[in-house]
Amino acid sequence: MYDWIDNDAAFEQDKPLDECGIIGIYAPGKTDIARNVYFGLHALQHRGQDSAGIAVNAGGKIQYYKERGLVQEVFNDEIIERLKGDIAIGHVRYPAKGDTHVINAMPLVVYYKGGALALAHNGSIVNADVLKEEMQEHGAIFQTSVDVEIIAVLIAKHLKDHSIEEAALKTLRTIKGAYALVMTAEEKLIGIRDPHGIRPLCIGKTKEGFVLSSESCAFSLLEAKLVRDVQPGEMVVIENNEIKSYQFSEKSKQAGCSFEYTYIARPDSDIDTRNVYMARSMSGRMLAKEAPVEADLVISVPDSGTVAAIGYAAESGIPYGEGFIKNRYIGRTFIQPDQRMRKLSVRLKLNVITDNVKGKRIVMVDDSLVRGTTSTGIVKMLIEAGAKEVHVRVASPPVTSPCFFGIDTSDKKELIASTKSIDEICEMIGANSLAYLSIEAMKDAIALGDVLCFACFDGKYPIEVPNLEE
Amino acid sequence: MYDWIDNDAAFEQDKPLDECGIIGIYAPGKTDIARNVYFGLHALQHRGQDSAGIAVNAGGKIQYYKERGLVQEVFNDEIIERLKGDIAIGHVRYPAKGDTHVINAMPLVVYYKGGALALAHNGSIVNADVLKEEMQEHGAIFQTSVDVEIIAVLIAKHLKDHSIEEAALKTLRTIKGAYALVMTAEEKLIGIRDPHGIRPLCIGKTKEGFVLSSESCAFSLLEAKLVRDVQPGEMVVIENNEIKSYQFSEKSKQAGCSFEYTYIARPDSDIDTRNVYMARSMSGRMLAKEAPVEADLVISVPDSGTVAAIGYAAESGIPYGEGFIKNRYIGRTFIQPDQRMRKLSVRLKLNVITDNVKGKRIVMVDDSLVRGTTSTGIVKMLIEAGAKEVHVRVASPPVTSPCFFGIDTSDKKELIASTKSIDEICEMIGANSLAYLSIEAMKDAIALGDVLCFACFDGKYPIEVPNLEE
Amino acid sequence: MYDWIDNDAAFEQDKPLDECGIIGIYAPGKTDIARNVYFGLHALQHRGQDSAGIAVNAGGKIQYYKERGLVQEVFNDEIIERLKGDIAIGHVRYPAKGDTHVINAMPLVVYYKGGALALAHNGSIVNADVLKEEMQEHGAIFQTSVDVEIIAVLIAKHLKDHSIEEAALKTLRTIKGAYALVMTAEEKLIGIRDPHGIRPLCIGKTKEGFVLSSESCAFSLLEAKLVRDVQPGEMVVIENNEIKSYQFSEKSKQAGCSFEYTYIARPDSDIDTRNVYMARSMSGRMLAKEAPVEADLVISVPDSGTVAAIGYAAESGIPYGEGFIKNRYIGRTFIQPDQRMRKLSVRLKLNVITDNVKGKRIVMVDDSLVRGTTSTGIVKMLIEAGAKEVHVRVASPPVTSPCFFGIDTSDKKELIASTKSIDEICEMIGANSLAYLSIEAMKDAIALGDVLCFACFDGKYPIEVPNLEE
Amino acid sequence: MYDWIDNDAAFEQDKPLDECGIIGIYAPGKTDIARNVYFGLHALQHRGQDSAGIAVNAGGKIQYYKERGLVQEVFNDEIIERLKGDIAIGHVRYPAKGDTHVINAMPLVVYYKGGALALAHNGSIVNADVLKEEMQEHGAIFQTSVDVEIIAVLIAKHLKDHSIEEAALKTLRTIKGAYALVMTAEEKLIGIRDPHGIRPLCIGKTKEGFVLSSESCAFSLLEAKLVRDVQPGEMVVIENNEIKSYQFSEKSKQAGCSFEYTYIARPDSDIDTRNVYMARSMSGRMLAKEAPVEADLVISVPDSGTVAAIGYAAESGIPYGEGFIKNRYIGRTFIQPDQRMRKLSVRLKLNVITDNVKGKRIVMVDDSLVRGTTSTGIVKMLIEAGAKEVHVRVASPPVTSPCFFGIDTSDKKELIASTKSIDEICEMIGANSLAYLSIEAMKDAIALGDVLCFACFDGKYPIEVPNLEE
Repeated sequence: MYDWIDNDAAFEQDKPLDECGIIGIYAPGKTDIARNVYFGLHALQHRGQDSAGIAVNAGGKIQYYKERGLVQEVFNDEIIERLKGDIAIGHVRYPAKGDTHVINAMPLVVYYKGGALALAHNGSIVNADVLKEEMQEHGAIFQTSVDVEIIAVLIAKHLKDHSIEEAALKTLRTIKGAYALVMTAEEKLIGIRDPHGIRPLCIGKTKEGFVLSSESCAFSLLEAKLVRDVQPGEMVVIENNEIKSYQFSEKSKQAGCSFEYTYIARPDSDIDTRNVYMARSMSGRMLAKEAPVEADLVISVPDSGTVAAIGYAAESGIPYGEGFIKNRYIGRTFIQPDQRMRKLSVRLKLNVITDNVKGKRIVMVDDSLVRGTTSTGIVKMLIEAGAKEVHVRVASPPVTSPCFFGIDTSDKKELIASTKSIDEICEMIGANSLAYLSIEAMKDAIALGDVLCFACFDGKYPIEVPNLEE
Repeated sequence: MYDWIDNDAAFEQDKPLDECGIIGIYAPGKTDIARNVYFGLHALQHRGQDSAGIAVNAGGKIQYYKERGLVQEVFNDEIIERLKGDIAIGHVRYPAKGDTHVINAMPLVVYYKGGALALAHNGSIVNADVLKEEMQEHGAIFQTSVDVEIIAVLIAKHLKDHSIEEAALKTLRTIKGAYALVMTAEEKLIGIRDPHGIRPLCIGKTKEGFVLSSESCAFSLLEAKLVRDVQPGEMVVIENNEIKSYQFSEKSKQAGCSFEYTYIARPDSDIDTRNVYMARSMSGRMLAKEAPVEADLVISVPDSGTVAAIGYAAESGIPYGEGFIKNRYIGRTFIQPDQRMRKLSVRLKLNVITDNVKGKRIVMVDDSLVRGTTSTGIVKMLIEAGAKEVHVRVASPPVTSPCFFGIDTSDKKELIASTKSIDEICEMIGANSLAYLSIEAMKDAIALGDVLCFACFDGKYPIEVPNLEE
Repeated sequence: MYDWIDNDAAFEQDKPLDECGIIGIYAPGKTDIARNVYFGLHALQHRGQDSAGIAVNAGGKIQYYKERGLVQEVFNDEIIERLKGDIAIGHVRYPAKGDTHVINAMPLVVYYKGGALALAHNGSIVNADVLKEEMQEHGAIFQTSVDVEIIAVLIAKHLKDHSIEEAALKTLRTIKGAYALVMTAEEKLIGIRDPHGIRPLCIGKTKEGFVLSSESCAFSLLEAKLVRDVQPGEMVVIENNEIKSYQFSEKSKQAGCSFEYTYIARPDSDIDTRNVYMARSMSGRMLAKEAPVEADLVISVPDSGTVAAIGYAAESGIPYGEGFIKNRYIGRTFIQPDQRMRKLSVRLKLNVITDNVKGKRIVMVDDSLVRGTTSTGIVKMLIEAGAKEVHVRVASPPVTSPCFFGIDTSDKKELIASTKSIDEICEMIGANSLAYLSIEAMKDAIALGDVLCFACFDGKYPIEVPNLEE
Repeated sequence: MYDWIDNDAAFEQDKPLDECGIIGIYAPGKTDIARNVYFGLHALQHRGQDSAGIAVNAGGKIQYYKERGLVQEVFNDEIIERLKGDIAIGHVRYPAKGDTHVINAMPLVVYYKGGALALAHNGSIVNADVLKEEMQEHGAIFQTSVDVEIIAVLIAKHLKDHSIEEAALKTLRTIKGAYALVMTAEEKLIGIRDPHGIRPLCIGKTKEGFVLSSESCAFSLLEAKLVRDVQPGEMVVIENNEIKSYQFSEKSKQAGCSFEYTYIARPDSDIDTRNVYMARSMSGRMLAKEAPVEADLVISVPDSGTVAAIGYAAESGIPYGEGFIKNRYIGRTFIQPDQRMRKLSVRLKLNVITDNVKGKRIVMVDDSLVRGTTSTGIVKMLIEAGAKEVHVRVASPPVTSPCFFGIDTSDKKELIASTKSIDEICEMIGANSLAYLSIEAMKDAIALGDVLCFACFDGKYPIEVPNLEE
């Protein structure tokens, strides 16, 4: 329930902000499962660093704890030990701008007639305002500003004369948007993915039961094996140590988020069967084919550009090396540099390895370029360090449209590629040349065919977006 | 969102636990009113030390902050400065057993169609379970376990086709129990007191506007003048710098809590026109008349027994002096004394002034005696220090029935006077004699006539109490 | 190692600041004695609230922990359990102005040839600067600004060819000033009191061994019996469960601090055989004889004036009552009141019980009056509340000279009685009359004869004070 | 002044622990230089994460602040602003085992006759015990267990009849060992490097004055230009904005720490004119020449093995890629994994990118191999992920002897290469082959000729080491 100045986010302002990571564990009879959720959330920490929470279900009785901070800051042994239950869900969150109140942390726990329900959500409900207003018309109240409260209210409304499964299905048919959800009530763990499968959710098998997770990278720590992804429009209900599957939407066009492969997900995760490292590496190779350049050294903007840079180097035959050192001790709170030092702030995080770039023609590979602010600083740093040429290569297409499905890519007017031409951007950041990967090449790199959402690159949203025209 | 072992409460286990203090300030155009609420809550801190919260209303837009801890621990300048608004309400809380989750802190803020509502409550709704179940039958959900959420849900339901005043009045006619409420919505500050006026709430006038407060002791710091008490069954709506009054209940028998005068309220407060110090002092005088004893010294159990002890001494002519020193540095966290020291734990807080009690016949005056545990220890301490006789005099009647109206006096079976005779208690605590004040004398001391609730002393509840027979 | 704005001290600015409390426990074979020191320090907390520390000695090996804060804030179970030893000393401290660095907290632990020595000190070395300079001339360095480091350096110098006892005695003959010291080295606990016995130190006996303490009020919690005071100019060495006594100074005039009886010590302590409560109560009685006044009510400035007020009332026959309520929740950190509220700041701590003072002629008894700032505010509060007359009675003489022996009574120019006549002070604080206790009457109240230091009242310092003329 | 369980160190147990980083800034007239030291320490954070401290010198008057924690945890704006001075030194520390008391944090500040001296040290004094005993024989005392206190005591002893420069030079001729020192006293900033130049220290020039730093990587943030390294046996005194140089030792054999290039220093630093990245990259290339293997992929153990791995790949022609993902959110406090999960603890930090290693012959390059514990776990992880072969290549020689000069490489018996043959180690960690870089090749990679200390690899200590035979 405290606030901080998140300097780290400021440094990362060229990147989209991942919104959330979710996990659910089902292990009948094993009541210390909160510990496993803790470690699972640790593996998903890259998806959200603002708050963390765990809810446990012991025979239908739900307890929870959530607070602002990293997983390891929020929880300690004492808290974990009080959270007894053999079904548990967890959540890490990166909040929308300004919304840092702990009341908006998840899981959300609500008490309906005869029971309790805990929910954790990754995504964004497009018709949230409409639904909310409609419910408020009938006298409903809301205590938070998170979409998942709408889902909870709707499910509860239906629960008065339906089973939890039916209530959920009825609700899902009403809401529009991107959502991966884990919920627990009664003695069930439930996983849901929206009809287009925009946000990821996969199923793992452990000795004791099952795991649901935003990404499969959590499975190694939990000794779980990846079984499969939850399908678009599918709800899985885990009960009596079995998975029941419900398909709640007509077969829609699958449209998984392509940015998960480019930047958000961890390289050791598989999403919808495609490994992220391999996709990212292939993006770098495609980029080398599409946008070759004569140069002496390929470097990356660490850490997110590294895999693509290695791919670019391998394909192009230009040696790969490190051009920047990233300070690993960047935390949340910094004293303010004085006026004179302000322009140096990027150097708190990145420093050039002068001896390795001096006198060389450099290819600098980044995974994406959203606002362009950081790039300006670091190209300049390379040139000051004596680089002869700096060619910027971006392993994804220009970001021209905002995301409405759970990623904060800033407003359209802040997206550099929506207001400037590539040449203008190149000049602004001070590079000798600038090239992006094409959507087609990116599709080939991800290699899943026509099942992805590229809306932030091409503006073609798989779901109607109400207020795009603004 | 953290828990502690509240040793202080453990030490006080012979006392009822005050449940809450509330305040509301209305000062049109003065947007830094959160600061005033802070100081008002500081003056009400004795009514609840577990959590504190402030909600501010700026033209209908509500912001809030609440956290576990004392007022001065929860808030700092940065937080106070962010809370801009010219209407504000605040709350301090002592929670029911085990219920220490921050989500149950107040004010509660809810978002209804077209607006927001903040509420702070002192009291207890007797038909809460019935109302809650009824609403859940219709699909409502609850996120907390505090009664005020029920009030909020009901008001919101009525708001869809009523004004805030009408919605509140409709709601108040449904709920039964003890409640003092302050609320803010639109550009209004609202104060409500239940039909029997069980919990206190009074109105003060400042240069800029108005103050509502559980006790008038908050007015001095705020430079407010006590105007009057909110009447039983009255709702006051402050808007356009005027007070409008609504009487929402038939004329019921007024039944203000007598324990406020005995223990809970601060001596410099006036409740329903009677000053607490004067009532408490008079209780001591009445006690001296009803239960005289030949003795050398009147001492008090500090601090709550002191005013009555001074009164007893004045009436009896026996000199008043101090028999105990209270350690002022008792905080929340103590390391555990080892087994051998455990029995000494009362000495962390109280120590005998041996030279002043040695060889004397002592009258030890306490304000009330709930479980009898502390008394046992301190009478023994006096005797070990050389007191010749110890006569315990309690400035209120034996507590035989639990309170259902917002005070935690423990379960009936833990109330020593409900299971033991006065002689048995006297023997248990090791005193030479023990006497309580009679209900009649207490009524005379408070001097307001037949307008008080004495239910914890005589079991005559002004409102039907559902599960008393259990 | 942190700093705070100590508002509490600000509120108390009319009082001298106690400088330190010390304790030592000797319990051969009982290795968890740190726990007992913790509780002993808790009982001495009123002598210093800025830092707390404990050093334990296990067979000559010394470990310690010290930090800024109250005893219960500094220590927790984990820390206490790591501090294993059967001899231990502890310290609480109120620092000189501005000197709040943790390096100046005590105990001080130093490592000399073949051993370690821990020291805790209450008092002030008058020739500190001279000694320090002298040692620095010979190449010594200092790491702190506390006097006890000088003592440690001197003892260590002598230790190279003397026993610890001899080294200490040689050192004590060099230093001038007020000091009560507890030390531990080898398998000894040592207690020392300066030749005039200015600062207090007493000896207690437990089942397992011995306790040394600034005040006997710590003995009750520790189940120790008061044996006797350490004598002026005496060093006691506790070893092999026996006390050996060394007299290191010629018979000097005993000159115990009279302010200990007036304000500093806890009423349940005996200092040099005289109980503090009884002395304070007698001061009140003497004051009534010396400065009677016709009035309706005697009240105190709580808490320090209460005992004297009760004595005044008893002697004068005027009824005693409470005129002020003291807010018990005053902590260290407050948000700043805005300009308009600043003048109200005394009301954060004290509020008038209007109904009890209205229309009455009041005698307001305080224990002492140092700067006069608080008195001004509270007399005004009484008059605003309707008091007909306010007669201020101070249970000690006018403070006209600063203390050089361990109490911070402010600079001479800030001592109101050193620059203004009694009439001027009376007018300044707005009272109808003002009277102080005479030195002779105070001597009679303490009832120990001619063995006290009254230097702050009469400027007759028992030790030559170097820079008084400034 | 608190302790934590440093899990991070536990994970890193295969690595030597860097002991300290030091910095000094001289900027006459610029009194807010503490801010610059803060940022300089941030750049040196990799050299020590346990405590941080800054001392400022304003015209000879020294103030300081030090506490346990990372630089950004220890300091905030309020503290930095109070540290006014135009000369300042700073220190970050990784303490010797168990020694985590804040009193051992640096800078150390001592007060000698007429002045104050602040010191910060990186290294280890070999004859510390002898010197300490000798001084204690003469009655000196010590308050800490850090070597720098000995230096301070010696300098102070000489200061009584020498200038600060002479006193320092006299002291330096007495002490043996490895030391890089920054000190400030009077209006001087002093930098010292031991006769063999074991620990690094370099000089930078800013607009306002000078900077001394363990590594030049701090200069970029501070807008300083690297001037030169302090020479072995040189003391530089910066005063009146000029550098004076004193050579205090006969020309000894230069013997800079080779481990700085391998692991400790940041790749963007130049030490004794050699860039660390280039040395590390060249080590990888030499390793590929000395220990080639037929394979499909070169991966590194991140982050410290990465530069060498890239070099190995470039030289060998085998593609470079990432085999592991390192979790960036590893902090100090973790809840304990239960028994079953304990073996997974390395997975909290590292996870295999299965798709990239499956079916491949892997060369895994690490920078060094000290105890071998981590390697065992991660080779196994690769094999479980489907790697066909795992060839471990270490870019430094086997560590067979402990360091006595400021690096904690564990006791000799814990050094895996001192007790096992390479074949045995290879079997233990489960690799298909294992090879180390030779000392000769390492020398060639660092490319500075015969001016390095390789004692941890060959046991040839440049200084006599007293207790090696134990």
